[in-house]
Amino acid sequence: MTDGPIRVTVWGENLQEHQSDAVRAIYPDGMHTTIAAGLRTQLGEDVQVRTATLDEPEHGLSAGVLVETDVLTWWGHIAHDLVDDAVVQRVQARVLAGMGLLVLHSGHYSKLFRRLMGTTCGLRWREAGERELVWTVNPGHPIARGLPEVFAIPEQEMYGEFFDIPAPDELVFISSFSGGEVFRSGCAFRRGQGRIFYFSPGHETHPVYHQREVIHVLANAVRWANQGSLPPYPTHTTTPNSPTGWYGAT
Amino acid sequence: MTDGPIRVTVWGENLQEHQSDAVRAIYPDGMHTTIAAGLRTQLGEDVQVRTATLDEPEHGLSAGVLVETDVLTWWGHIAHDLVDDAVVQRVQARVLAGMGLLVLHSGHYSKLFRRLMGTTCGLRWREAGERELVWTVNPGHPIARGLPEVFAIPEQEMYGEFFDIPAPDELVFISSFSGGEVFRSGCAFRRGQGRIFYFSPGHETHPVYHQREVIHVLANAVRWANQGSLPPYPTHTTTPNSPTGWYGAT
Amino acid sequence: MTDGPIRVTVWGENLQEHQSDAVRAIYPDGMHTTIAAGLRTQLGEDVQVRTATLDEPEHGLSAGVLVETDVLTWWGHIAHDLVDDAVVQRVQARVLAGMGLLVLHSGHYSKLFRRLMGTTCGLRWREAGERELVWTVNPGHPIARGLPEVFAIPEQEMYGEFFDIPAPDELVFISSFSGGEVFRSGCAFRRGQGRIFYFSPGHETHPVYHQREVIHVLANAVRWANQGSLPPYPTHTTTPNSPTGWYGAT
Amino acid sequence: MTDGPIRVTVWGENLQEHQSDAVRAIYPDGMHTTIAAGLRTQLGEDVQVRTATLDEPEHGLSAGVLVETDVLTWWGHIAHDLVDDAVVQRVQARVLAGMGLLVLHSGHYSKLFRRLMGTTCGLRWREAGERELVWTVNPGHPIARGLPEVFAIPEQEMYGEFFDIPAPDELVFISSFSGGEVFRSGCAFRRGQGRIFYFSPGHETHPVYHQREVIHVLANAVRWANQGSLPPYPTHTTTPNSPTGWYGAT
Repeated sequence: MTDGPIRVTVWGENLQEHQSDAVRAIYPDGMHTTIAAGLRTQLGEDVQVRTATLDEPEHGLSAGVLVETDVLTWWGHIAHDLVDDAVVQRVQARVLAGMGLLVLHSGHYSKLFRRLMGTTCGLRWREAGERELVWTVNPGHPIARGLPEVFAIPEQEMYGEFFDIPAPDELVFISSFSGGEVFRSGCAFRRGQGRIFYFSPGHETHPVYHQREVIHVLANAVRWANQGSLPPYPTHTTTPNSPTGWYGAT
Repeated sequence: MTDGPIRVTVWGENLQEHQSDAVRAIYPDGMHTTIAAGLRTQLGEDVQVRTATLDEPEHGLSAGVLVETDVLTWWGHIAHDLVDDAVVQRVQARVLAGMGLLVLHSGHYSKLFRRLMGTTCGLRWREAGERELVWTVNPGHPIARGLPEVFAIPEQEMYGEFFDIPAPDELVFISSFSGGEVFRSGCAFRRGQGRIFYFSPGHETHPVYHQREVIHVLANAVRWANQGSLPPYPTHTTTPNSPTGWYGAT
Repeated sequence: MTDGPIRVTVWGENLQEHQSDAVRAIYPDGMHTTIAAGLRTQLGEDVQVRTATLDEPEHGLSAGVLVETDVLTWWGHIAHDLVDDAVVQRVQARVLAGMGLLVLHSGHYSKLFRRLMGTTCGLRWREAGERELVWTVNPGHPIARGLPEVFAIPEQEMYGEFFDIPAPDELVFISSFSGGEVFRSGCAFRRGQGRIFYFSPGHETHPVYHQREVIHVLANAVRWANQGSLPPYPTHTTTPNSPTGWYGAT
Repeated sequence: MTDGPIRVTVWGENLQEHQSDAVRAIYPDGMHTTIAAGLRTQLGEDVQVRTATLDEPEHGLSAGVLVETDVLTWWGHIAHDLVDDAVVQRVQARVLAGMGLLVLHSGHYSKLFRRLMGTTCGLRWREAGERELVWTVNPGHPIARGLPEVFAIPEQEMYGEFFDIPAPDELVFISSFSGGEVFRSGCAFRRGQGRIFYFSPGHETHPVYHQREVIHVLANAVRWANQGSLPPYPTHTTTPNSPTGWYGAT
């Protein structure tokens, strides 16, 4: 849709990588670096990837960065409350105007995702290193393209229902766990002119973002969420008072 | 919504009960009899239940019976092809006009369900007596009312994704199986003026319809699918040619 | 579903009725009083209606009032910003826990609706006293029950697309206006355990809530949104960490 | 997604063009020829278009043609009953396997569309040469891309609600007519692996398919519905009996 490459910004909380040896062993340069590298490998010249983290000014998400971002990925966990409300509002507005958004794993509890959904976004969980099976329930969806009918993640945190989200506009994946729980693990939403994809695998103590199928999902989701340039989007304060016949077709 | 009781017709193929000792041991009077008795127990005076089977004239589904039926339940398995096309068409028309329909287990492959869905309605399966866990993913839905967040069916045939149906209008239950598969086991659809609920538990060699939670689901679904009397419904050949201002409001 | 009557709280901003002669002429006791009276007339003993307004302490929506409210209706227009954020958050939580919510006309821009939707909720508008036709596009929906296929509101403010909301879970009405615009005027949403219905007719300078069909819609929506008592609902901070086999079915 | 051009087959009933002077004046070489030419102009080298008509053997839709078709467009009106059931079944199967389908105007009553929807597909209508306004209600949808918020078709047959279809997976356009009616004029459905778009403008006595915006919609819909090559699709008779651990991940 656009002539140039898709401009992706990978956002990472980037805290546990510094606080925990176990996490650092898996993601020595930060989880965001691994995700960015995976996308570059999978998408090649079709993509231009940068990263941003919590500790940067404006969390690395200035207005300038956002306007040059076609798709943003979001991973956060222990510091949702430290994300500035003004940045959250700015990102939300940009999503409604057409930027793609991929919300990953514990990002379900981010201020950003909860504001976009309007619900608590709560879920059931258990850290027990269980096998997760990711099943495709929508084989014609672009995000499932090229993936097997099912793939296993050897060890994962369990995320289980009830997952308190609005019914997804498109349900792409459902996961099961060794312990028996199920989860709507791949959920697509349309909000305003933007597209949002939530994908639940990705606990920090398991090497999930090193797994080929997981990166394949993220790469497909980047392509799906990208819309390139769209017409300007009306904001809350620019709602059009429209005189009779404004559209020139009376 | 109606003053009188909900009029339910429980339809059963009623063949395997006569052909297999194992099935007869579980359903000595036919599966339809067990389902009908369960609904009577659960719904009491709110319901008036009759049964109908494949071997009756017009499969027990004459125009007269259908017009007096608020909700029809359908279980079939080995004889889908023996169901008369004229009866299928009559039932489909009655559903579109507002009759509720509960499609049970192997009924997914009935002519009736496939015609109403427009897809193959295929799925993955395995007869291995696995434990099925039925998870509620829509706790505010009337069909989930009064049920626990999850309940187990000790032994069931596995039904797994991909289940080739249109995206349900409301997804109520997702099941997992011991073998790891998942399945959209409780799916609500609206077609025409009618409501359809597909519920997958119910293999004939396990006593599924003797289980309290399963009957609870069916009873809830009967209440949800019932709409009592509705205005007449336009058919394929009565589409209204509508003169300008027909609605008296120009 | 409940034994007692449905407990409805009609919330009104109640400002323009005091500021404008034109509005006061139509709603001398406040718009909320007219809506409440209409619901009482239409629903009789099935309903118990109280009112609440912006100028009351906590806007009349204390925790005590909310817990005794099955369905809340919301009309606001010129003072959305004066509604206390704490009250908005409390109402949102109560909706997710299962309380029904009817958002009326200019309530589309209330903090409450925008928080529940996650979008700008913007729309096109024109105050020109145009005829609005309200068309049913979902004749089997409970909110359309007993209504004609179309009804006219002689004079209304135009509300037109694009209406920036998530795709409704159920679309019930679409309106057209003399000027040619269209609008998704009756939209049903499910959020958490709660049900939300947005209905757009209701400009303060036209006697819309005195019209029989409009009250009929609201009464149907009250019945649809009411769920009586539901199980407790997990909040953002009570997400369940669930040990293996917690559901007693391993 | 595919390396080569999108292979489109434009199907036309091609009867009224020979029977009516008025229709022939607008479409001297048949409506299908005009649609095909429009798509070629709009999509250029991205597309390879052929046509097929009712009077050809197998209506021009042999298995060989279908397997080489990525997107099929369907316009029929007075001869739906003359379309062979075997061809209808073949096209339906190909759609479920992933071929895109655009159903145009009176094609709503084709055997093909009714089988895919499962409903009567009835609607309200009036031949009065009214102005139709086509409003975008989903500005981020690929089928709306590059189109204005609204465009007018100077003269059209009125198609009005209630339109008896399943709730569309994505609603893209709503039309209003001079007479006041409204219609869900652009509806996207996903069935099996395939994508279906219904677009209602296109009465044979008005030059609708000569209008730039209309062809723009069709061209966008061709791009959206195209999925290139997909994995083989299970049919009704190849449902997988799946031994435990078939997915190699136990």
